[in-house]
Amino acid sequence: MENFEFRNPTKIVFGKDQLEKLPELLQEQNASKIMIAFGGGSIKRTGLYDGIIKAIGDSFEVVEFGGIEPNPEYRTLMKAVELARREDVDFVIAAGGGSVIDGVKFISGAIKYQGDPWDVMEKKEGCEFGEAVPFGTILTLPATGSEVNSGAVVSRKEIHAKRVMGGPQFFPKFSICDPGVVATLPKRQLANGIIDAYVHTLEQYLTLPTDNLLQEREAEAILSTLIEVSDVVNDPANYKLASNFMLCASHALNGNLRCGVPTDWATHMIGHELTAHFGIDHAQTLAIICPRLYEHEFDKKKAKLVQYGQRVFGLTGSDDEIAASAIKRTEEFFHHLGVKTRISDYTESYEGIDQKIMETFIERGWTEMGETKSIFPEDVQEIVQASY
Amino acid sequence: MENFEFRNPTKIVFGKDQLEKLPELLQEQNASKIMIAFGGGSIKRTGLYDGIIKAIGDSFEVVEFGGIEPNPEYRTLMKAVELARREDVDFVIAAGGGSVIDGVKFISGAIKYQGDPWDVMEKKEGCEFGEAVPFGTILTLPATGSEVNSGAVVSRKEIHAKRVMGGPQFFPKFSICDPGVVATLPKRQLANGIIDAYVHTLEQYLTLPTDNLLQEREAEAILSTLIEVSDVVNDPANYKLASNFMLCASHALNGNLRCGVPTDWATHMIGHELTAHFGIDHAQTLAIICPRLYEHEFDKKKAKLVQYGQRVFGLTGSDDEIAASAIKRTEEFFHHLGVKTRISDYTESYEGIDQKIMETFIERGWTEMGETKSIFPEDVQEIVQASY
Repeated sequence: MENFEFRNPTKIVFGKDQLEKLPELLQEQNASKIMIAFGGGSIKRTGLYDGIIKAIGDSFEVVEFGGIEPNPEYRTLMKAVELARREDVDFVIAAGGGSVIDGVKFISGAIKYQGDPWDVMEKKEGCEFGEAVPFGTILTLPATGSEVNSGAVVSRKEIHAKRVMGGPQFFPKFSICDPGVVATLPKRQLANGIIDAYVHTLEQYLTLPTDNLLQEREAEAILSTLIEVSDVVNDPANYKLASNFMLCASHALNGNLRCGVPTDWATHMIGHELTAHFGIDHAQTLAIICPRLYEHEFDKKKAKLVQYGQRVFGLTGSDDEIAASAIKRTEEFFHHLGVKTRISDYTESYEGIDQKIMETFIERGWTEMGETKSIFPEDVQEIVQASY
Repeated sequence: MENFEFRNPTKIVFGKDQLEKLPELLQEQNASKIMIAFGGGSIKRTGLYDGIIKAIGDSFEVVEFGGIEPNPEYRTLMKAVELARREDVDFVIAAGGGSVIDGVKFISGAIKYQGDPWDVMEKKEGCEFGEAVPFGTILTLPATGSEVNSGAVVSRKEIHAKRVMGGPQFFPKFSICDPGVVATLPKRQLANGIIDAYVHTLEQYLTLPTDNLLQEREAEAILSTLIEVSDVVNDPANYKLASNFMLCASHALNGNLRCGVPTDWATHMIGHELTAHFGIDHAQTLAIICPRLYEHEFDKKKAKLVQYGQRVFGLTGSDDEIAASAIKRTEEFFHHLGVKTRISDYTESYEGIDQKIMETFIERGWTEMGETKSIFPEDVQEIVQASY
């Protein structure tokens, strides 16, 4: 087992009607002037916004910032930063899904940053976020696990850029996770959420056989549970299904699964480029790339594909048969959720994107990826081409 | 799924040679005058003590307190409290297993407590530990999970008392977990450690069928892994076995498994009395009580025993057969580790202890226990008698 460090201080407040605990959670944080950040306004339609305002009552000053889009956009977030600075906000509530929460992580770091925050995203030398304005989340969409981790992804459309950030100061102080929100979501978002959680788990599990027997089994626990509750896309008001889905999405990316094991993340790195170029939903890009990447890396991943096939799908046969079936079953699972797994299912203008993505990676100096650092630019090109 | 809150801020520093990170961990905590608390001196024999002193260097003032015994004793701990107050200690390092760490939790709470700290242990009205002196741990024995939680058990022999305490201020700031220490331990302690972790998991799992599919699978992951690595008792220098054992013990009691599910803990409550009366090792008391308790509660626990038998032991047959075999296999697992499962294996003077323990519970006003609160004093008597 590889050495690791693990710390996750976020307070998770999980279950029905937990919004009523918001005032005490804010008091614990000594909040006084709060910015509520949200997305396209669905929280106003569902009544969540009113619930938040009612829960907060008169004890705190409140400003609001709406309009954070999926794949939160740098320009939009900078407007929130300006508002927060102007209003001298001392706590931020992210009421939304992964995009809103990721956006708030950026906002909370940028508020106190002296220079150009994009320099931090580009990892320019000497550019790092320091102290962050503390924030909590009210989760409206189980998917990214952003409510229980300290990482974020921010986009900048005009330069086709999607960049990651993070640091120990970016753990939410608290996250209110009410599975009841699942019932308010359209099927596409639910399917995306399940795939997101599923592929997050695979990125940390489907690598090489490791000595970490426990984390491997914990990953299999999440994969098996997600499959078992996947009917939530058709029955989102089913609390048993919804609550397990929400918990799986958190456990998939709360930092535990990566402890002591190699991780992959190549599917995410390539997938991000598909979102940047075509605006394909994040989870859809994962469903497109992951089966083709596993086929491309078949020999390297075979041993783990066999373990995955046996333990999660109960497959039997030769190693080659089990490994191939495990990829097939994974892709069928995505189809079963109603998510298509080819680039051509989403756009007609994909010719040459293989070349373009490869060049983007080379330009950035990222010449290798995957758990053995053995996916090179030409491999990326082949994987993207195989995904047409 | 039941509502729950979860927060665990302890920083886990896991792996080989992690002791070298101690100075930076202490700096993060702004420690200046440190008390190193330990047990019977094994850390001096194994070289760990010298390693700690060397790692700390000249950057911090150090006082030491040795002699914290298994089932840490109130009187001993109060001496440490006096020393810490006299020396104005601002950080405590617990270098040991669960007993030392539990002892340090009490010490760190008692230092700043104005009244008689035993009143807190007895849960007298209005008596609660407030701010605690911060502490970190250097784990020498995987077993209790105390290195990753905020609970502790303290004994007071003269009144045959074993009491629990806890609170959010009692999470270690950091825990250095080096599986290399496993190689320094005698077989009895290793076997005890595995049983402790195993029964901690059962207490939170082997209850009723729940809607929490994920936590159930995560519990099964720990149980299966502990069985898989149990040969560590014969091969403690095997790092793969040792590291998984250490990680399982932490995950068994880091607060995750209890989220959203009913818990039992009756085996622990009854077992504590066997330690208080006969000085039987904690884990041995669990191995004695748990099979008999499951037999006594057979009908109530049957559905979960079946799930446990199928998923952890791969059993087949009728529900009754699987459930009975699951108990048998559990007891055989304890025997396989070299741990006996009858009170009479440990003491000859057990006659009447069933009555005595039942009366103790009644005196304390604890008249019911178990996940359905349906184990009554007469049940406790029957369970203890069946364990003779």
